[in-house]
Amino acid sequence: MRIPENKAKERGKSINLALSERGLSALRATDLGLDKIILKASVPMHARMVHVGDKQMSQAYSVNGEHINAVDRARLNDLLLDAAEKFENVTIYFDHRLNMIDFDKNVMTIQTGAGDNITTVKHYADLIVGADGAYSRTRGQMMRRMRMDYEQIYIDTGYCELSMPPLIDEQGQAQFALDPNHLHIWPRHTFMLIALPNPDRTFTCTLFMPFEMFDQITTEEKLMDLFTTYFPDAIPLIGQSRLIRDYFTNPRGSLISVKSSPHHLDGRSVIIGDAAHAMVPFYGQGMNCGFEDIEVLHQVLDRHGITPVTTKNQRKLLEKALTDYSNTRVKDAHAICDLAMYNHYEMRSAVTSYRYLARKKIEGWIHLMAPRLVVPLYTMVSFSTLPYSKAIERWHKQNFWLNVVLGTTGLATLTGLTGLLLSKQHNRDIIHSVIESVWKIFK
Amino acid sequence: MRIPENKAKERGKSINLALSERGLSALRATDLGLDKIILKASVPMHARMVHVGDKQMSQAYSVNGEHINAVDRARLNDLLLDAAEKFENVTIYFDHRLNMIDFDKNVMTIQTGAGDNITTVKHYADLIVGADGAYSRTRGQMMRRMRMDYEQIYIDTGYCELSMPPLIDEQGQAQFALDPNHLHIWPRHTFMLIALPNPDRTFTCTLFMPFEMFDQITTEEKLMDLFTTYFPDAIPLIGQSRLIRDYFTNPRGSLISVKSSPHHLDGRSVIIGDAAHAMVPFYGQGMNCGFEDIEVLHQVLDRHGITPVTTKNQRKLLEKALTDYSNTRVKDAHAICDLAMYNHYEMRSAVTSYRYLARKKIEGWIHLMAPRLVVPLYTMVSFSTLPYSKAIERWHKQNFWLNVVLGTTGLATLTGLTGLLLSKQHNRDIIHSVIESVWKIFK
Repeated sequence: MRIPENKAKERGKSINLALSERGLSALRATDLGLDKIILKASVPMHARMVHVGDKQMSQAYSVNGEHINAVDRARLNDLLLDAAEKFENVTIYFDHRLNMIDFDKNVMTIQTGAGDNITTVKHYADLIVGADGAYSRTRGQMMRRMRMDYEQIYIDTGYCELSMPPLIDEQGQAQFALDPNHLHIWPRHTFMLIALPNPDRTFTCTLFMPFEMFDQITTEEKLMDLFTTYFPDAIPLIGQSRLIRDYFTNPRGSLISVKSSPHHLDGRSVIIGDAAHAMVPFYGQGMNCGFEDIEVLHQVLDRHGITPVTTKNQRKLLEKALTDYSNTRVKDAHAICDLAMYNHYEMRSAVTSYRYLARKKIEGWIHLMAPRLVVPLYTMVSFSTLPYSKAIERWHKQNFWLNVVLGTTGLATLTGLTGLLLSKQHNRDIIHSVIESVWKIFK
Repeated sequence: MRIPENKAKERGKSINLALSERGLSALRATDLGLDKIILKASVPMHARMVHVGDKQMSQAYSVNGEHINAVDRARLNDLLLDAAEKFENVTIYFDHRLNMIDFDKNVMTIQTGAGDNITTVKHYADLIVGADGAYSRTRGQMMRRMRMDYEQIYIDTGYCELSMPPLIDEQGQAQFALDPNHLHIWPRHTFMLIALPNPDRTFTCTLFMPFEMFDQITTEEKLMDLFTTYFPDAIPLIGQSRLIRDYFTNPRGSLISVKSSPHHLDGRSVIIGDAAHAMVPFYGQGMNCGFEDIEVLHQVLDRHGITPVTTKNQRKLLEKALTDYSNTRVKDAHAICDLAMYNHYEMRSAVTSYRYLARKKIEGWIHLMAPRLVVPLYTMVSFSTLPYSKAIERWHKQNFWLNVVLGTTGLATLTGLTGLLLSKQHNRDIIHSVIESVWKIFK
């Protein structure tokens, strides 16, 4: 049920989301076929397309052909709301703000309306689950009652959304302006442009830049200078007038990273999603991690034999279960927040470094040969449900051994090459062919 | 002026404060003689007195005889209020809660009263200075408007206050139960007891323990077991019945460390004291740092030529000044928060380690010989107004050189001793006398 009934579906932020395995796994677990429904509304992205100069380099997300999925935030919201309101015991309230929570009675004070026309309602819940975002009121109310460790960090980078329309081909058909099965990136070290495909053949572009740069680019001329210098191939695709309109009309978003510990208060409430762990968007894991929270929470409740039936005795049982939940989930949330922050650097810069690319190639190549020996970090994060903290732990171990192996191999190769160099012309030809084959591996 | 006029002076938390140079410097700068007034109401503490077994070890705070000053929080509040209300343009409101701030107009909404009898008043200020403590509402309101980095960490240790009455001597006179010119510590690694003197010849004791231990010690028997095992000399001084009464009546306090950055919002508001940087109490710097904030803020405002006269043009000027303030003050606040956290470890444990004590002795000894070469960290923090961040920087440099010198000296001594050992009996006597003189230095 929806209150008010005639509530028009609201558009949220228009930024695109990248749905990957953790999110899909949670959707699958609902047994409503939600994974399939949402995949149908999304566009698969198999690789990053890195734009450098007038070149485009495709960098596959996985050597096994796995892909992530671009999905429009508003469309996703609608699909989830449609699914939720089919349940008789679910009531969806719009335009209701949480004001405060009395945790002694587990009663929420909720307000609706504005100005002189504010109505206050009180609502009891056995368990209050706060999924109210990075600026969570539930979290704020919990923090007044308990010793919660909390950290929020804003990065210096802001963002502005731009839109890229379809190209109209000779038959008058709308076509994607760029390869649609890619997440496009224009990495420029301290700033970057990205573009994600939509099913309607448009791209949603996001310009990430230090706020300082936003503050400096205040005229159409300066904006066109920036794009002519750094993103020349994007200008005809976006269109100059649309670019200027979007840049000067759309708001500048800021990016916050939030960590909290624990995620629960006694057996009374728990925060999930951004309310517990907002992250910068550079690993495409914010939504996936939030959905996974729900799957993990359900697993923990099941393990403790907690059913939705209200009993007075459940408060103690709930406390045990939620303590378990925080004990596993806090460290995973911290891990993915850190990874997302690290990927900010990787997306802006490292994707253009040969050392980085060579290493990725080697990692992927070993993974292909021995899939259980080395699993690339991106694969563990995006294409598996291995807990984030375990993924990082494994990554560190792999890196150690990879460095040993590469070090040893490097040393052996160097010794061999030196030996060969010191001998005859015949051997120089061998060296040449060795270098050539190595080059082929990396190409 | 006080509102309400007949407001009885309220007692705050009864925990004692240690006033040292930074606090005194700020009080001196008021030109009201406040430093002298408050020193008169305090008890000088020249050293730590470490209680181990049935021994007491006095560890001077300074080789130059400098001391810190124990002052009762409620008494200090009274003296400061008395001084403030002498100014005609100062109005002190009691029982008024800040509800929200409209930063567009710099208008605060303040509430007074309770239940059905709440009155709301609005108040404009050119500059809103939030000195409203670790759980600052001003800070919360600022965070809704700006990108403030923020961190709060609770340590696992809680505290409970106990009181130690005076001893009555043979003449019927009240006497301090312990040496009054010391801060007494019973360090027990994961927990500790401390005692600070009051002018009325009582001591205020604080028991710091992990919350887990508080949760376990739930009976009089367990409490007496704890004290008999770890603080036997304190039992007769506090008195068994008073100990039991205080432990089971007084609340358990929790300890929070807060960092924020920046400390200001445009030219509109600034937070100082615990509102900007709450710290754990183990360096005795919380109040001193807060007072220093005010002195530094005044210096910055003076440097920018800002006077209390309201002009429309001051908002931009204020913004520049407050940016300057945050730029210097944030790193100093972070530095002392970190030091306070580190001192938690030092007070509970290190003060009983011979390595720690030997090092302190050497540091103090070099400082005495060459006061400008090496200054002990405690001296820089408590007996100077060198910015905290600079104090830490200098400390790191000193440590590096001290390690080099001690390492070299150690090596030379070892070489010399080995050489001597390899030669005759005569030389063994020399070694003996060398060891004896070294021992004397450390004693």
